[in-house]
Amino acid sequence: MQDKTPKAAVIMGSDSDLPIVRKAVEILKKFDIEYEVSVISAHRTPDIAVEYASKAEERGFEVIIAAAGKAAHLPGVIAALTTLPVIGIPIKSSTLDGLDSLLSIVQMPAGIPVATVAVDGAENAGLLAVQILSLKYTQLKEKLKKHREAMKEAVIEKNIKIKGEVF
Amino acid sequence: MQDKTPKAAVIMGSDSDLPIVRKAVEILKKFDIEYEVSVISAHRTPDIAVEYASKAEERGFEVIIAAAGKAAHLPGVIAALTTLPVIGIPIKSSTLDGLDSLLSIVQMPAGIPVATVAVDGAENAGLLAVQILSLKYTQLKEKLKKHREAMKEAVIEKNIKIKGEVF
Amino acid sequence: MQDKTPKAAVIMGSDSDLPIVRKAVEILKKFDIEYEVSVISAHRTPDIAVEYASKAEERGFEVIIAAAGKAAHLPGVIAALTTLPVIGIPIKSSTLDGLDSLLSIVQMPAGIPVATVAVDGAENAGLLAVQILSLKYTQLKEKLKKHREAMKEAVIEKNIKIKGEVF
Amino acid sequence: MQDKTPKAAVIMGSDSDLPIVRKAVEILKKFDIEYEVSVISAHRTPDIAVEYASKAEERGFEVIIAAAGKAAHLPGVIAALTTLPVIGIPIKSSTLDGLDSLLSIVQMPAGIPVATVAVDGAENAGLLAVQILSLKYTQLKEKLKKHREAMKEAVIEKNIKIKGEVF
Amino acid sequence: MQDKTPKAAVIMGSDSDLPIVRKAVEILKKFDIEYEVSVISAHRTPDIAVEYASKAEERGFEVIIAAAGKAAHLPGVIAALTTLPVIGIPIKSSTLDGLDSLLSIVQMPAGIPVATVAVDGAENAGLLAVQILSLKYTQLKEKLKKHREAMKEAVIEKNIKIKGEVF
Amino acid sequence: MQDKTPKAAVIMGSDSDLPIVRKAVEILKKFDIEYEVSVISAHRTPDIAVEYASKAEERGFEVIIAAAGKAAHLPGVIAALTTLPVIGIPIKSSTLDGLDSLLSIVQMPAGIPVATVAVDGAENAGLLAVQILSLKYTQLKEKLKKHREAMKEAVIEKNIKIKGEVF
Amino acid sequence: MQDKTPKAAVIMGSDSDLPIVRKAVEILKKFDIEYEVSVISAHRTPDIAVEYASKAEERGFEVIIAAAGKAAHLPGVIAALTTLPVIGIPIKSSTLDGLDSLLSIVQMPAGIPVATVAVDGAENAGLLAVQILSLKYTQLKEKLKKHREAMKEAVIEKNIKIKGEVF
Amino acid sequence: MQDKTPKAAVIMGSDSDLPIVRKAVEILKKFDIEYEVSVISAHRTPDIAVEYASKAEERGFEVIIAAAGKAAHLPGVIAALTTLPVIGIPIKSSTLDGLDSLLSIVQMPAGIPVATVAVDGAENAGLLAVQILSLKYTQLKEKLKKHREAMKEAVIEKNIKIKGEVF
Repeated sequence: MQDKTPKAAVIMGSDSDLPIVRKAVEILKKFDIEYEVSVISAHRTPDIAVEYASKAEERGFEVIIAAAGKAAHLPGVIAALTTLPVIGIPIKSSTLDGLDSLLSIVQMPAGIPVATVAVDGAENAGLLAVQILSLKYTQLKEKLKKHREAMKEAVIEKNIKIKGEVF
Repeated sequence: MQDKTPKAAVIMGSDSDLPIVRKAVEILKKFDIEYEVSVISAHRTPDIAVEYASKAEERGFEVIIAAAGKAAHLPGVIAALTTLPVIGIPIKSSTLDGLDSLLSIVQMPAGIPVATVAVDGAENAGLLAVQILSLKYTQLKEKLKKHREAMKEAVIEKNIKIKGEVF
Repeated sequence: MQDKTPKAAVIMGSDSDLPIVRKAVEILKKFDIEYEVSVISAHRTPDIAVEYASKAEERGFEVIIAAAGKAAHLPGVIAALTTLPVIGIPIKSSTLDGLDSLLSIVQMPAGIPVATVAVDGAENAGLLAVQILSLKYTQLKEKLKKHREAMKEAVIEKNIKIKGEVF
Repeated sequence: MQDKTPKAAVIMGSDSDLPIVRKAVEILKKFDIEYEVSVISAHRTPDIAVEYASKAEERGFEVIIAAAGKAAHLPGVIAALTTLPVIGIPIKSSTLDGLDSLLSIVQMPAGIPVATVAVDGAENAGLLAVQILSLKYTQLKEKLKKHREAMKEAVIEKNIKIKGEVF
Repeated sequence: MQDKTPKAAVIMGSDSDLPIVRKAVEILKKFDIEYEVSVISAHRTPDIAVEYASKAEERGFEVIIAAAGKAAHLPGVIAALTTLPVIGIPIKSSTLDGLDSLLSIVQMPAGIPVATVAVDGAENAGLLAVQILSLKYTQLKEKLKKHREAMKEAVIEKNIKIKGEVF
Repeated sequence: MQDKTPKAAVIMGSDSDLPIVRKAVEILKKFDIEYEVSVISAHRTPDIAVEYASKAEERGFEVIIAAAGKAAHLPGVIAALTTLPVIGIPIKSSTLDGLDSLLSIVQMPAGIPVATVAVDGAENAGLLAVQILSLKYTQLKEKLKKHREAMKEAVIEKNIKIKGEVF
Repeated sequence: MQDKTPKAAVIMGSDSDLPIVRKAVEILKKFDIEYEVSVISAHRTPDIAVEYASKAEERGFEVIIAAAGKAAHLPGVIAALTTLPVIGIPIKSSTLDGLDSLLSIVQMPAGIPVATVAVDGAENAGLLAVQILSLKYTQLKEKLKKHREAMKEAVIEKNIKIKGEVF
Repeated sequence: MQDKTPKAAVIMGSDSDLPIVRKAVEILKKFDIEYEVSVISAHRTPDIAVEYASKAEERGFEVIIAAAGKAAHLPGVIAALTTLPVIGIPIKSSTLDGLDSLLSIVQMPAGIPVATVAVDGAENAGLLAVQILSLKYTQLKEKLKKHREAMKEAVIEKNIKIKGEVF
């Protein structure tokens, strides 16, 4: 089955991350990627994190999106236990403006990469997952091109609209 | 052909980035990924960058690794012109300790993701490329597991060695 | 025609930048600089950005103001494709307080300069454009001096007013 | 046995951290704390890290010192799997001047604390371990006071010496 | 007496820190740690700070939690005058987003450690105090494990709940 | 005369800035811009700075390049006293890695712009001056295009050379 | 006259700084320091700034408090033109959280000091002025001690009050 | 006696700060300020620090220069115990590039000011002390003006010399 339908895991360290992470899920849904959304904490449920990461591949997942804030260890902890590509979303926390989350995710030591996107960049995490899956699931390539085209059209429309703006 | 052999493009903004980027190439070589290394500047050779990115997919590339320093636009410029996954390596520059390169690459606005690794994290860029390619080229999965195993062995050896250390 | 009337292009990466960028346009208007305002994304409409920058000079523009946030590539991408002076406005984003935008614009590598102003510093971008254009259009020099004089008067008035303040 | 002799575990993410971490071990040695030094990587040997942390208490350890650099997850990963106090040493890495290590260790989310010391602050990590152990092993209290006294004497001597300095 | 009941001192530099520090006190209360809450300023009441720290041990305290903002000297000043473990909570101030408080507390020079937790991380300060006290007061160990278990259950419940979320 | 030959002023806060600033002068020389190099300190020779800036226009200068480090006030002080375009070069100082110089120059308040280039970005300061002067001195346009072409050729050569590199 | 009554100048770059700067004035008033409050911009009214600083001493001022935000040059510009002690207040701006103002004021190059207080630290600027003036006007010494005593009493009261707090 | 000769105390947290602090002493010497240099640690010799600060005024000191690195508490601790003006020198440490020292000194909470100079800015600390003392010891005013004049001459000489430079 795992050869027919692309499948992505989306996990977040806390359910308070959902308003941000939702945008990643919406992208997956739009591109007809099968997905599973979970709340797993690297620190509060470490054994579940280990179990989840270790079983992810055999459960048919092909890419994992992991979001976390502050000393954001979740993406790295997951990445250490699977060879599936792991995409990390640094969540802006109430102090230090997201710099802590960003550095905790992106600065992974040699050997275990995490594909990091912008602070609160969940939409791009979803799109990166689709781009990665499109290598194998070629039907996604066309959809990605259409999505790019739609983004382009939206900018062009805004450009037309701004010409009518009175300054 | 592009279905049989995985193929990666490695580009850097300046040949002075090579001592760092070399580690990415060594990983690709080790995993028998076909690769092409190029020096392309988003700013000095913008039309070549556009051409390269636009043609990358039809030339058979499946993942692109792009390294740049300072106001590091290369990965984002490339990513804007292809739907292939683009991995960005922020190169530490002589001022600001790599923070400029990191933010210029990772903080991509919604729509065009760049999979960012650590400052000077070329080895992880190579490994992330392999992990992405392994979705399609399943022979890589086994190699990745062996590579992880070897890393693990190296740590274990160091652990044994440190027990003999006199403090 | 382009020798008679100074002409400036004002572009922004997203229409959400308009509340900031508007101040640049108001300056241009005040100094009777002909201007064109556009929404062009370096990432979502890269070919339009390339086209726009490449044709800017022959279309009679003499200076370009470009505003963008986060990994703000627009000013640098434009600057790479024209030898007109490009003024960059870093837009404060919702995370990292504008440091990402600032570094992504100001830290341009050698060869392609972007004249960078303060984070959200659109008014100064407009004034810098006028100062640049005044080299050629000497009628602007007098207006600039009057504008400076008016700013000075405003400070002096505030100084008088503060003397009446009760502490 | 664990009631008679205080026992500390010292672990580091890489043997390249040893020149820094050594100062923590020297403190433990000086205070006659039994110790074990290990190289364990949260990312390269995650299962060993899990095993080590889970068994630490029953093996008789009473405090754990963990050092790591960059996206320094080791102290947090260990802390998640034991209720022993975990002391984190952020190691300065070759980029970003240790800020990444510091934030990755100190900014732990609610529930799992890591007692963080200064970047490269291994000596203080050792002393903090001793202070913690002194609650139970009261013989350490006297030694700590003597150590403080000696530090004080050293400063006083330097103060005397500086009076003879010619400016 | 001090051998029977664990006793913690909680001090803050300003009563405006109470909304944050309260979370530390609630943890101490939950774990039946005897505590005393004080407002003591290292700068406005230096002699009281000196007196408090010098007498803390003989008054039966076994751990001290100290919170302060901006140039946050309180934890370090206290730590210099006692060999009890001192836990520092950096309080986010109205400027610089807590970075000043964090660095002023965590970057202690060699000799006098402060066990630093996250910016505004009072809950973890309380838990760290409990973990430290549990070395001596073994009844706390069981409670800590239950607390961890409860945190884990809370995450699991949130995980179940998120599965019902409609995207 | 000032209509026939472009003329630029290059000033620096300290002669220790010369190794960096030299690159700006070399660009001016290469493009046959008449130039004057001065050491003027906003703080140590404030009256000379005021005099220099006030007279710059009538002395025939058309653009001013000003370099300074640390609390780098020189470019802003000059800009306040002339309506000529002022280009600021932040010089990396021995502490804080150039961030102080950058922010002191680029964050100019509304009314008085400074066209800021990268930390130590003297070459770009020179090129920006040429681009600005090219509005009036159209002979510079062709030279700028040739300079761009030469930069492009240099990258292409490096690209060819890297293909022969053995990895 | 200037020997009988201490006299302080308080200047700010913009009247929008008044809500912060007011606290400095209130301190001066409380300590019966004669003061003059002015709005003077280093950039918009440079000649007034020069005039003001140059005449400050002969007008009988003995200390100058100068507040400014962003690329905050006012304190340094004033300090360059007088040998009176100049106290700088960095004002938090709408971007970069006051770091720009702080570095622009405190990082003065050798030769021209500015006595810098915390971001938005106007109360301390007032107190520092009083402490400086107290060297000459010894009646201020007693008042300073009383002010300290009052601050101490306020903390002690808050300490008493917090004891009654229910947790 | 204390009315006849100005007297300054110079203290540093560690004798390793001497190479920097020496510049402050040289300034004091040059201006014939009587001085005492001490090594006093706020953390290792807290009671000496308290004693020193409390007695400073009655011992005839009129200004105190205090230098410290990392979590630099010395200037603030001293300032809390005297109403003499305290000048703080942040010493650049081996990590975090002096930002920790700077924020730990300059961000003093309301009530206890420290007159902060640049990171490693000892020369300015000396000059600020002289400027403060010159309010009372008017003979210093003339010397300060001569010192400024000499600085100015040095810049002018460098300006002349740079005109002879070949580019």
